[in-house]
Amino acid sequence: MKLMEEKIRDCGKVLPGNILKVGNFLNQQLDTAFLSEVGKEIARLYKDSGVTKVITIEASGIAIATLAALYLGVPAVIVKKHSSANQSKDVYSAEISSFTHGNVYTAVVAKEYLNANDKVLIVDDFLAVGNAIKGLQSMLAQAGAELVGCAIAIEKGFQGGGDLLRKEGIRVESLAIVDSMTDTDITFRA
Amino acid sequence: MKLMEEKIRDCGKVLPGNILKVGNFLNQQLDTAFLSEVGKEIARLYKDSGVTKVITIEASGIAIATLAALYLGVPAVIVKKHSSANQSKDVYSAEISSFTHGNVYTAVVAKEYLNANDKVLIVDDFLAVGNAIKGLQSMLAQAGAELVGCAIAIEKGFQGGGDLLRKEGIRVESLAIVDSMTDTDITFRA
Repeated sequence: MKLMEEKIRDCGKVLPGNILKVGNFLNQQLDTAFLSEVGKEIARLYKDSGVTKVITIEASGIAIATLAALYLGVPAVIVKKHSSANQSKDVYSAEISSFTHGNVYTAVVAKEYLNANDKVLIVDDFLAVGNAIKGLQSMLAQAGAELVGCAIAIEKGFQGGGDLLRKEGIRVESLAIVDSMTDTDITFRA
Repeated sequence: MKLMEEKIRDCGKVLPGNILKVGNFLNQQLDTAFLSEVGKEIARLYKDSGVTKVITIEASGIAIATLAALYLGVPAVIVKKHSSANQSKDVYSAEISSFTHGNVYTAVVAKEYLNANDKVLIVDDFLAVGNAIKGLQSMLAQAGAELVGCAIAIEKGFQGGGDLLRKEGIRVESLAIVDSMTDTDITFRA
């Protein structure tokens, strides 16, 4: 999706620690018209895959997951980062270590929202080493649900998570793959 | 919005502690077609108010805020619950105590996403005592931005937050106002 590469070049900013800041359109201030196009593109890529649910871990992928699910005509399931007062005890869970935040959290989803008949599309804003997706894979396996594939706004190709998943035979569609970045330049995978 | 009342009657569940569980359509498994209608209704209510930005605190209001902003043709700003590695130090912030989670957190938004020219619509899934909105009001005041009003999916009328805001002259549009609830019945404000 050339549109995503152009948006990153126009609006993204590289920060120390291999952080690509896209807060002004993707995950802090949301360019909703642009994200709607992102959602439509994800829906186009997976429209013939029989997806029954889109899943994402809160919070920065929620907007894209919602729009992709809307255009696919399916619900979006939001995995929570910890149990809360109105969370059923009857959950699937996984321990996930966050590259961005440098911590470990428990991802949980109520069992009632995933089942063995589900064909699930994982949606997220970023894919780096792939820890979040590994955690979601584990939760889908607990539910007996099928993983149809992943749709990612921005893959950090140089961190290898996406290619590892592809080697395992998982379909990973990233709207932009950053192969390298410096303070002054971002190189996208051809 | 009768549609929201019907949806709550059909799909909602009352849990001990005055908790209305709507996880199967509003904030855990998202009924995206329904939430799109919610977004359209919010946009209809505020279409002539000159809104420049929609704002919400992560995470459960993000889907509705995104869709409302999309249909209003403006960006959505997501206020974070704590500072993170890719968060600028240059932020507006407020301390907010959460009724649902029984804790206190710091809400933060980068100064670059709010300014004195903004006319801001607050969107959230729930309004109970109104603490989150008070925190957002404080952050808008820090930015010199104008609060146009609030759009809420479900207001717990019996907790009084919405009526206090209305008494202050703030426009509060709730798509359903629950005036009382028991294990077996939910009464909506006429």
